[in-house]
Amino acid sequence: MQRSHDLLKRFEELKEKVDIVPVFWNDGKVVWLNVTQIPWKEEYVETDSVDRLAEAIRRLEIRGAPAIGIAAALGIAMAAYNSPNNAEAIIKSSLEAANVLSKTRPTAVNLFWAIERMKKKIEELSNLSTEDIKDGLLTEALKIQVEDIEGNLRMGEIGDALLEDGDSIVTHCNTGSLATGGYGTALGVIKTSWRKGKRIFVYPTETRPLLQGARLTAWELKREGIPFKLITDSMVGYVFSNKLANKAIVGADRILLSGHVVNKIGTYTVASLSYLNGAQFYVAAPTSTIDAKSTLAEVKIENRSEDEVTTVLGKLRIAPEGVRALNPAFDVTPPQYVKAIITERGIATENLETSLKKLLYLK
Amino acid sequence: MQRSHDLLKRFEELKEKVDIVPVFWNDGKVVWLNVTQIPWKEEYVETDSVDRLAEAIRRLEIRGAPAIGIAAALGIAMAAYNSPNNAEAIIKSSLEAANVLSKTRPTAVNLFWAIERMKKKIEELSNLSTEDIKDGLLTEALKIQVEDIEGNLRMGEIGDALLEDGDSIVTHCNTGSLATGGYGTALGVIKTSWRKGKRIFVYPTETRPLLQGARLTAWELKREGIPFKLITDSMVGYVFSNKLANKAIVGADRILLSGHVVNKIGTYTVASLSYLNGAQFYVAAPTSTIDAKSTLAEVKIENRSEDEVTTVLGKLRIAPEGVRALNPAFDVTPPQYVKAIITERGIATENLETSLKKLLYLK
Repeated sequence: MQRSHDLLKRFEELKEKVDIVPVFWNDGKVVWLNVTQIPWKEEYVETDSVDRLAEAIRRLEIRGAPAIGIAAALGIAMAAYNSPNNAEAIIKSSLEAANVLSKTRPTAVNLFWAIERMKKKIEELSNLSTEDIKDGLLTEALKIQVEDIEGNLRMGEIGDALLEDGDSIVTHCNTGSLATGGYGTALGVIKTSWRKGKRIFVYPTETRPLLQGARLTAWELKREGIPFKLITDSMVGYVFSNKLANKAIVGADRILLSGHVVNKIGTYTVASLSYLNGAQFYVAAPTSTIDAKSTLAEVKIENRSEDEVTTVLGKLRIAPEGVRALNPAFDVTPPQYVKAIITERGIATENLETSLKKLLYLK
Repeated sequence: MQRSHDLLKRFEELKEKVDIVPVFWNDGKVVWLNVTQIPWKEEYVETDSVDRLAEAIRRLEIRGAPAIGIAAALGIAMAAYNSPNNAEAIIKSSLEAANVLSKTRPTAVNLFWAIERMKKKIEELSNLSTEDIKDGLLTEALKIQVEDIEGNLRMGEIGDALLEDGDSIVTHCNTGSLATGGYGTALGVIKTSWRKGKRIFVYPTETRPLLQGARLTAWELKREGIPFKLITDSMVGYVFSNKLANKAIVGADRILLSGHVVNKIGTYTVASLSYLNGAQFYVAAPTSTIDAKSTLAEVKIENRSEDEVTTVLGKLRIAPEGVRALNPAFDVTPPQYVKAIITERGIATENLETSLKKLLYLK
């Protein structure tokens, strides 16, 4: 297992640098920080069961488009790794894992991207020794994570060019270490500028229904020492219209070539209110988030359980019994509100379609 | 106490009609439905203490601009009613009550309007018999409530003209019986159209931080049988951009002659998103909400405790310990997003300043 060994070493170095890694490989098992327990408890869960891992993704114990892609890749590698030593069994169980994991969350394109990449690797390796198949699949999964973290660090450097000393920035949901392979996308850009010494103030939205902003982003900002004030989602307009913030930066679950950004419910609201008040609205996401195939009409928005709205995190009921609720997990921000899209390969701006194509090396 | 007796009779008739009344007079005491306990418990609190009543307003046990104005008026009448039978003592204790009650909430103009009206009455009555002062003050307070309910019923009739069969309507916060003398303002308009047989669908926002939408509006809509789906504040953009709603109707805590609407935090967001998506945005409020004197710069926005944001109703902590939060109770919607303002005297529209002045009989 030489190749995977080298990558594990590289991963350990990166882990040091980015402080927190929400999902990782541990000797035939996948370990994750159960983010549904943050900020109350720092609970790491370890499993060698693909079903348990799929459940963790479905229940948002692991969340954020890049993080769930990595979790799925590690899950497929885990299924192979723990298989009996014959090629047919390894291939069968890794493909089964891919199938189970693909049914967890319908919207995030990274999940399918990571699974497809692993399936391609399964095909490529199928004629090698069992040892090489296992090593090759683990290497591929680790590569996805290492590339993600390295991409985030690069994205931070690239996006830093758009942030200025004294900026005050609205961010939505969690796009930090807890949503990615490590470090973060939008929050990674903020961290980079902060670590370089720029004075930055952040207004994280709490991000109902699941409160990833209040729970996770606040937790990461506090850990990083970046000054901030938490706001409810209903305060975004107040913040922009009173000129308390001059920029917004968010992540993305899927970006269409047209420049439409599919992201956490409420993103469209942040974008609209930035636009109406002359603030800049930026998106930071890896190029793996760009969906070069789908049209807007083809994007399926996941509707989640109504209980997420009628309760707070299942812990406190806030509406009368029997009340119905709407619960789309995502919304779509049209390109006219998007000033720039920051990726690990560069910034798409102005004509988003043309510049996104360039970043994907498409004509 | 003949005059107040007649008004109490009229009040009882109206109470029947409007189903729920959140604050009322009961033989020398003020009684209120503690709305902080809805939807979990229907708890009525009764007091003869002005301080306890002031605390109830401060702690939002009584809330909504018209309801707190009525509570303050009843509180002043109560202080007089329970005074020893000499004119000086009655006047002293009612003025003291006015002073205590005026310090509860800084933004709602109805509170000051109701207190001023009571103070003027104290002056008018000061030379009469003690019996007549007490009866006169109680009569004035009951008048404020009866006028509010009658005004709301009229506002419902007037606003009904703007709603059509098949409308789907976003509403924010609670503007129903629980926010007023009874029946409601914005929710009263919706109720009127519904009771007249129009098919109406409502999307109430949960209205963080204090969740008046999830707790109170959902409770009233359910009681009234109006079909609805609860949404988080972050879903307003989704609802409008997907054409799930074609109208929005909200209340107001203060309306400036310029047409600027000061209302629950998040109202500006609803207005902006209606505007961007071609939906109509209406405000329904009694003319007592119109502040003909203040300029925008003079409007003081109440900042409430940060705990309201870092917890959910003080029951569930959602952010890490030590996190700071912003908590403005209100925001300001500029007139260009307001299609019409519905009052008990008619509808202000087009040039809002001119038509608001007409409604106030100003030149």
